Amino acid sequence: MRRTTFAAMQCPIAQTLEIIGDPWSLLIVREAFFGTNRFDDFQRTLGIPRTTLTARLDHLVAHGVLERRPYQEHPPRSSYHLTAKGKDLRAVMVTLMQWGDRWTDVDDALHLEDVSTGQRVDPHLVDSATGVPLRELRTRVVRAPKPPS
Amino acid sequence: MRRTTFAAMQCPIAQTLEIIGDPWSLLIVREAFFGTNRFDDFQRTLGIPRTTLTARLDHLVAHGVLERRPYQEHPPRSSYHLTAKGKDLRAVMVTLMQWGDRWTDVDDALHLEDVSTGQRVDPHLVDSATGVPLRELRTRVVRAPKPPS
Repeated sequence: MRRTTFAAMQCPIAQTLEIIGDPWSLLIVREAFFGTNRFDDFQRTLGIPRTTLTARLDHLVAHGVLERRPYQEHPPRSSYHLTAKGKDLRAVMVTLMQWGDRWTDVDDALHLEDVSTGQRVDPHLVDSATGVPLRELRTRVVRAPKPPS
Repeated sequence: MRRTTFAAMQCPIAQTLEIIGDPWSLLIVREAFFGTNRFDDFQRTLGIPRTTLTARLDHLVAHGVLERRPYQEHPPRSSYHLTAKGKDLRAVMVTLMQWGDRWTDVDDALHLEDVSTGQRVDPHLVDSATGVPLRELRTRVVRAPKPPS
């Protein structure tokens, strides 16, 4: 499979998959949301081969999803932290988690809890302008030139 | 990479990635949302090798994301349609699309439009109980036994 195929597609979903579209990358991002930031901790919690982990961390750093911060000089060691771009994947992770809870066969469900109140948080998508839940709307996808940034 | 690694993880995100966590599977699901349902149309729009497409369609059917419907007897031909489980991936696709629009370098952005009004729909996640946007909340992920279904 040539991964460049996806990058070449002028589609934001395809471009996103180029960055986070393999299972290990998404699981590394998941762990980063859980607070993991050191190589050995990623390695242990995911049971991922070290060479694969090195390649995936480099890939996520190169694409600006994670940033590397040195925390020790002898021997040199770095930790990995979600950037603003990485933190913005929260909605993707939440919707993946909810779908998995509903449709896959896991013993324990995951859910979100408000840190300050301890209340369960169960997010769903609503239209920003009207507040109408997306599931009540019939929508289609349209393509539009991106405004200059 | 042994894919069974992910399935064995008792995490709904890992289980989800076992089903849709490779780029082609997600792009096939994207095409199905766009209304594509025949083998040759998937093949043409995605430029995917035919053997890969066959394997991915079989995988998505086996996991109940797509269902196969015969539409011709001589020669036998089937089309592929999103099941309820597959349609429930809409929130995942929407959040992937929005992240890609914000953070990747595509010429054209994709957005959603209400089919009946033609108005642009720009969904964001809010807490179902309070309506507070997820981005305004500090949350943590907690694990809880799944209620018997």
